[in-house]
Amino acid sequence: MNREQLINLIRQKQSFLCVGLDSDMDKIPAHLRNTADPIYEFNRQIIDATLPYAVAYKPNLAFYESRGIPGLNSLYKTMAYLESFRDQCFTIADAKRGDIGNTSTQYAKAFFGKQDSGLDFDAVTVAPYMGEDSVKPFLAFENKWVILLALTSNKGASDFQLTEDRQGEKLFSRVLSTSAGWGNAGNMMFVVGATRAEMLAEVRKIVPEHFLLVPGVGAQGGSLQEVAKYGLNKDCGLLVNASRSIIYASGSTDFASKAAEEAKAMQKEMAGLLV
Amino acid sequence: MNREQLINLIRQKQSFLCVGLDSDMDKIPAHLRNTADPIYEFNRQIIDATLPYAVAYKPNLAFYESRGIPGLNSLYKTMAYLESFRDQCFTIADAKRGDIGNTSTQYAKAFFGKQDSGLDFDAVTVAPYMGEDSVKPFLAFENKWVILLALTSNKGASDFQLTEDRQGEKLFSRVLSTSAGWGNAGNMMFVVGATRAEMLAEVRKIVPEHFLLVPGVGAQGGSLQEVAKYGLNKDCGLLVNASRSIIYASGSTDFASKAAEEAKAMQKEMAGLLV
Repeated sequence: MNREQLINLIRQKQSFLCVGLDSDMDKIPAHLRNTADPIYEFNRQIIDATLPYAVAYKPNLAFYESRGIPGLNSLYKTMAYLESFRDQCFTIADAKRGDIGNTSTQYAKAFFGKQDSGLDFDAVTVAPYMGEDSVKPFLAFENKWVILLALTSNKGASDFQLTEDRQGEKLFSRVLSTSAGWGNAGNMMFVVGATRAEMLAEVRKIVPEHFLLVPGVGAQGGSLQEVAKYGLNKDCGLLVNASRSIIYASGSTDFASKAAEEAKAMQKEMAGLLV
Repeated sequence: MNREQLINLIRQKQSFLCVGLDSDMDKIPAHLRNTADPIYEFNRQIIDATLPYAVAYKPNLAFYESRGIPGLNSLYKTMAYLESFRDQCFTIADAKRGDIGNTSTQYAKAFFGKQDSGLDFDAVTVAPYMGEDSVKPFLAFENKWVILLALTSNKGASDFQLTEDRQGEKLFSRVLSTSAGWGNAGNMMFVVGATRAEMLAEVRKIVPEHFLLVPGVGAQGGSLQEVAKYGLNKDCGLLVNASRSIIYASGSTDFASKAAEEAKAMQKEMAGLLV
């Protein structure tokens, strides 16, 4: 999906909601555990329930890899299901990969290479620590996106991301300004956590055009109003992710309808912010 | 495998060689391509041929993920094979993972959780960008290791890893000094590239005791002599990785014996350095 298509999707659904599919066998409703593939069944029902309100889905790879080959099979089935709604949602592999050049090419094939791995995500999250040649191989794929970690939503973000260099520039800001030149606003986005919404103003000075993927609204405590205030640009420019607050809105047989309610409430708030 | 066992293994084999299983369908010998699982068959023969000379094996996940479920099955079979030599080699998942706390726990299960994922590596490589809570969950597993990226061997390492903070400390050095306190020399190692061997002296000032995983010798041009000069400590303290120079020493039917020759030559050089 290219930038224009994504912007159109946001306008059409009046939403910039991304649903994080951090689907955990220990947290899904008990009645699903006896189905053939509980995680896939959970994801399928979550997708069906939230698709009118969400523009993106983001499975976090850790939750699938932790269950080995069966977990990865659930991921593959979930992706195949999402592909049947290809024009209705943007798909993000939250994988936080990154390695030396020839190896990053292999990771790009893993997430973008329908013919290689069987997966065909629109975007993958990448860690910036290894620099340019660890990121560029992903940008060689047409209509695919790198979403580079800049300022994350967790406590540990302050360990290195806020370190100031000799000129007083924080590391996350240096990551933004340096890496923006590796691609463009049509193939790169950045992760900026909602738990530090005031810093979005700083981020927007460096990358006014780029889309930002914003985790941390919902269970992690970030505010949607704050994120929109500092982060929205003329094309929206935001994908706000919520995982646990939507997918685990209920732990019972009504999980899908409760997830829909949560997603709808966020979509409504977003529609108001998009005016 | 704990630190004492690793040190004993190094003494016994007179080697600190790690063989990188970056096994690529496009590069393995043609005669293997018609076997049921060419990558596994390749790895198995490489392991058999190099086990007398190597103390560690390091599959890079990218090369398996890029081939989807069949690729991951090859990885699982390779790991099962390596487990049959559990006392004879240390195993490293070169995965460069890292995510917020609850998600890193899932990644830890993916690589250390025999009961969860089916994989049971001794160590996993982790990227430091997200800080303490992205690393600590891996350290909760007994006799398992985090190998944290500090100074990598690629060109892009200079983009951020060498950036100096206000006190003139480089980022990789700050990563070493900060993260050393998260674990200890018995459950953490650091990646330091051989292509910057002179910097190993700087690294050793900060982490004199820790093991260092050193990529970049061989195809990437780093020198084993230089690495040993600056990096060896009283317990050896080094695992030097070679991937392409060993596993692709020959592209023909003699690939395994040529790999053995390369590994043996490195082991011999290492034995001289361990005196």
